[in-house]
Amino acid sequence: MEIAEILPFIAGIASFLVAGGLVAWIVKQPAGTKEMMDISNAVKEGASAFLKREMKIIIPVAIALSLIIGIFLTPSNGIAFAVGAALSAVAGIISLKITVKAAVRAANLSGSGLGQTFAMAFRGGATVGLAVPAMALLAITGLYLIYPDPITIAGVGIGASLIALFIRIGGGIFTKAADMGADLVGKVEANIPEDDPRNPATIADNVGDNVGDAAGMGSDVYESYIVTILAALLIAALIGAPNFFLYPILIGSSGMIASIIGVVIVGSKNITDVMKPLNRSFYVSAAIAIGLNYVFITQFIGDSAASYALFGSTVIGVILVPVIQKITDYYTSYKQKPVIEIADSAKWGYASLTLMGIIKGMQSTGPFMIALVVAIIVSYSIASAAAPEGADPVLYGIFGTALTAMAMLSLAGIVLSIDAFGPIADNAGGIVEMTGMGEENRKVTDEIDAVGNTTKAVTKGFAIASAALAALAMIQAFQFEAAHVFEGVLDLDYSLTNPAIIVGLLIGGLIPFIITGQLINGVSRAAGKMVDEVRRQFKADDGILAGTSKPDYAKCVDIATVASIKELWKPALVAIISPIILGILLGPTAVAGLLMGSVVTGILLAYHLANTGGAWDNAKKLVEMKGEKGSEVHKVAVVGDIIGDPYKDTAGPALNTVIKLLNTIAIVFVSAFVAIIAI
Amino acid sequence: MEIAEILPFIAGIASFLVAGGLVAWIVKQPAGTKEMMDISNAVKEGASAFLKREMKIIIPVAIALSLIIGIFLTPSNGIAFAVGAALSAVAGIISLKITVKAAVRAANLSGSGLGQTFAMAFRGGATVGLAVPAMALLAITGLYLIYPDPITIAGVGIGASLIALFIRIGGGIFTKAADMGADLVGKVEANIPEDDPRNPATIADNVGDNVGDAAGMGSDVYESYIVTILAALLIAALIGAPNFFLYPILIGSSGMIASIIGVVIVGSKNITDVMKPLNRSFYVSAAIAIGLNYVFITQFIGDSAASYALFGSTVIGVILVPVIQKITDYYTSYKQKPVIEIADSAKWGYASLTLMGIIKGMQSTGPFMIALVVAIIVSYSIASAAAPEGADPVLYGIFGTALTAMAMLSLAGIVLSIDAFGPIADNAGGIVEMTGMGEENRKVTDEIDAVGNTTKAVTKGFAIASAALAALAMIQAFQFEAAHVFEGVLDLDYSLTNPAIIVGLLIGGLIPFIITGQLINGVSRAAGKMVDEVRRQFKADDGILAGTSKPDYAKCVDIATVASIKELWKPALVAIISPIILGILLGPTAVAGLLMGSVVTGILLAYHLANTGGAWDNAKKLVEMKGEKGSEVHKVAVVGDIIGDPYKDTAGPALNTVIKLLNTIAIVFVSAFVAIIAI
Repeated sequence: MEIAEILPFIAGIASFLVAGGLVAWIVKQPAGTKEMMDISNAVKEGASAFLKREMKIIIPVAIALSLIIGIFLTPSNGIAFAVGAALSAVAGIISLKITVKAAVRAANLSGSGLGQTFAMAFRGGATVGLAVPAMALLAITGLYLIYPDPITIAGVGIGASLIALFIRIGGGIFTKAADMGADLVGKVEANIPEDDPRNPATIADNVGDNVGDAAGMGSDVYESYIVTILAALLIAALIGAPNFFLYPILIGSSGMIASIIGVVIVGSKNITDVMKPLNRSFYVSAAIAIGLNYVFITQFIGDSAASYALFGSTVIGVILVPVIQKITDYYTSYKQKPVIEIADSAKWGYASLTLMGIIKGMQSTGPFMIALVVAIIVSYSIASAAAPEGADPVLYGIFGTALTAMAMLSLAGIVLSIDAFGPIADNAGGIVEMTGMGEENRKVTDEIDAVGNTTKAVTKGFAIASAALAALAMIQAFQFEAAHVFEGVLDLDYSLTNPAIIVGLLIGGLIPFIITGQLINGVSRAAGKMVDEVRRQFKADDGILAGTSKPDYAKCVDIATVASIKELWKPALVAIISPIILGILLGPTAVAGLLMGSVVTGILLAYHLANTGGAWDNAKKLVEMKGEKGSEVHKVAVVGDIIGDPYKDTAGPALNTVIKLLNTIAIVFVSAFVAIIAI
Repeated sequence: MEIAEILPFIAGIASFLVAGGLVAWIVKQPAGTKEMMDISNAVKEGASAFLKREMKIIIPVAIALSLIIGIFLTPSNGIAFAVGAALSAVAGIISLKITVKAAVRAANLSGSGLGQTFAMAFRGGATVGLAVPAMALLAITGLYLIYPDPITIAGVGIGASLIALFIRIGGGIFTKAADMGADLVGKVEANIPEDDPRNPATIADNVGDNVGDAAGMGSDVYESYIVTILAALLIAALIGAPNFFLYPILIGSSGMIASIIGVVIVGSKNITDVMKPLNRSFYVSAAIAIGLNYVFITQFIGDSAASYALFGSTVIGVILVPVIQKITDYYTSYKQKPVIEIADSAKWGYASLTLMGIIKGMQSTGPFMIALVVAIIVSYSIASAAAPEGADPVLYGIFGTALTAMAMLSLAGIVLSIDAFGPIADNAGGIVEMTGMGEENRKVTDEIDAVGNTTKAVTKGFAIASAALAALAMIQAFQFEAAHVFEGVLDLDYSLTNPAIIVGLLIGGLIPFIITGQLINGVSRAAGKMVDEVRRQFKADDGILAGTSKPDYAKCVDIATVASIKELWKPALVAIISPIILGILLGPTAVAGLLMGSVVTGILLAYHLANTGGAWDNAKKLVEMKGEKGSEVHKVAVVGDIIGDPYKDTAGPALNTVIKLLNTIAIVFVSAFVAIIAI
């Protein structure tokens, strides 16, 4: 192996070592009183119960699919699928375990002040942030070195996406069903505060934060990383320059090293504003990533015009991260005009607040899409212009946009670290509340949680933008691959004059609408069951509300588990079956249209849903900060937050994964798309 | 002229004669008491004031654009633009005048029972239904006979769409601002019933029903008709078979004759269920239209395989109308599961009701899109398979889908008649309420109004589906036209591997999101101003609420007028400028992508918005029918209805027109798309 091929292993192992060091530090800290441990254990057990039940369904499906792919398509794809799927599950499980451990310790530290608590939450988050991308980088580099033709390992993408989708959707429905159920009966009917131990759904709510926000985000980022490298490798193979596979893995390595440094420089001393050290850490990482990219690319790939141009594409990717962050922050932060207007509109009542949130979310798609389009145009142009004599400039251009996506994702380590402390702080707050540790402690966790809300919204923007770029690169790879597979058999016309493309675009555009409907419906139905159960418990035993008897937490966890697993199927089926059916009926061109259509509506809907939900959440926070808790205006704002829950935490994030799953399914099953109907 | 060329004139003139007969009958009926006439006059004056102000802005813009197009592009296009624009305005004005006249007479007849009142409302609506499509058919046939190259008269489409958009958006913002303003202060704060004469916004609300629902729908259908024939003519010209221009005008003629018969057979005797005679009338028209199509096509165009195949495409269009109606009816009727579920969810509160409405609206896009796609596939396949030796089967296929759209639109006469009685009944109900004519009379107008609500929702589905088919045909015409214009200059690649196409798709997909945001925002802002004014009047004069002094109705009309005209600009600018800018920068391929992207998200969003809004409206009605008016559940349901107002009556219908305007702009300005940036 060359030095360049060893680099991702060095970066990955370094990342694991630092993550391991952080875990060692975390578990060494005192876990708190018995009461705190009891709650933490209840959450842990609930989460494990959920995951176990989910795995019981996922594992047989995964094995079956792995065999189908391995036997009927290519054996290596079957293996790759298994690797992708297994590690996606591992990413989810790691995220979950660490979050639970860090949360109880952060709660325990909340008496020692902001700095200490923040350090615990951040280090917990950073463990996930460093371990998950490292796993992805190592897995795909390893697979590629064994099977150097990326199309034979594209199954890794299906495995990663499918399991991520299951964890995302399952977790997303679980968390919001529990959350809405707890709020609708607890806050609204019984008039008890959030996280009150008398609420039977409160443990389920905390379990939900873990399985939804922590496990979900972990597998999501893992999956994005895998699919993005895969897309770049597929295009590199089409260009036919063997050493081009080094680009994505070198970019990944540089971002990983940069992220380690970014994580390490975040201290715990003298912290008054949590956002500051996080921002500094991000910009340091970004600068280092650009520098290392330059060094790695010129050193290991050569200093041709193409090298410099492709380095330019990576710079665009790194710059795109803070640009998207700023746009998302503008539309979701309580310090900016949109959220202030939404909070203001609460005084006109429910209808105005709802409409205002939807308006702002719709409008936010404008600057976001324009930023994305400009990045695509610039990145494509410089890369295609630098294509050497005789090479296909189109492929170079597409490779450029794939590297832009990869450069974004290379910062996943630091971005995920900055995101993952949020659910930890949220959970720590829950434990503080449930054990009655007092106002001062709660204020500390609340402050960290509020920052976590912002970074969470911002990370969603990052995830959507990178998903869009990765999917666009995959669509190109799919088209070339299909043309290759059906050479001399089908005459593939990808132009907009082909009715199969138009039908594909319309059906593809439809999928995100249908899945959004299914997911929000799933949450509503599951929340309804939760409400019924909480009401039943309150009615059956007066002692619960009086505080003399303990509610049956496990029953609520169980209901959320069963309901979410039941709802998880339909959207997954739609995503798996639609490209396959359309491909068999109308052929690969229709599938290319479907993939493109799903990206167009998928990213617009996902960004709209994420920002509308985030903005409502922060509008409620703004009303509370003004001291209007309990007022009529606050009641209106709370409703906005509840409507926004499935928007931002279930449907929005799931669409990300759906558009990538569609792509990986399409590319792996391409040889089945025989077009039995010719139009 | 051949007989076939004379047919549209015969059908058009017959349509006008029947419409004239209906008008003569309407004005002969007694207009009611002085009190009723006073209100009717106030509404008429308000509507005229609005239209005058709007025209003051529209006319200079239209003249300027007509000159720009005439001087810089083609003179005939300038003339065609002027014709298209002028008649679009006339369509709006006719619809408005008739509605006002019929409404006061229907109110006056409401004491004579359901049959008489319904006959008046229906005949008023039928006048519009017969006159508007006839105008469109005559205008475009006349223009075509003078300038037989359709690309030289494509400006007629811009004129029609632009003015329709102005009237639709202006009216849509006016009506919902007045409606929301009246409801938010009147119903919610002052606790006075709807249409109460003490409410200063009540006349504005009635004016709004006229300018939004009547004038807006009139110019909308006119515009759809024009653009659909235009698309068919453009494709016919590309095929190069001169007698093919007969297809769309013969289909138009047969539908028009069928609509006249459909209107005439609707009686006024023994009516107990209003829906029955309407349904019978529609199915009779549809059957006659198919029969006449067969006769006309085989008689005047010949009995080749292509003729039969293209006749087949028209049958699909006619069948698609009731299919889409059934789907829309399922998702918006209070007798069906979705609305029942939405009404049920009101018991869980605002958040559940809002989410449930959004879920159902999202889900409704599924069957709708699948029906549309199946129609496209079948229509394209049979038409392209029948292409004669040496002809381009792709163009034949596209021509088939254009004729499917034309066959749908040919039924506009009967569809619009069935729709246009709704606003008349709504207004009649307002007059009954304001003049205190009593419960019995109100019950009669309410019953007709309720059916009107259903037919209104159903007509929206029809408008969206036909807009989609027309736009898809236009996009094909655009691509061929651009290839022709830039032959030897630019190498146009419409395939999904071209980054310009991808950028176009993304930007095109964005436009409906941005415009939806702008429109709902416009309504919210205008409604806010209305609320302030109504509050101001109540505060300034206690006599208003006491019923001793008359509120200043004119001031409210004025506020709605100014606000709506102010908000009308932004979306219109986005629709006009984006294809032009993108075309100049990135060339015609990017524009083709933009058009396609806007159709994909545009029809999905439009259908979602229309159905979600319609379903909330009927969920509220369902709650009221259960006798729960005034209950907590009813309060929740009213909020859903208010949120749905700008969804279904402003944003949804405007998107229809936007996607067609984008297309006509693109095709007329194609020679300007020089692609200064090459990617």
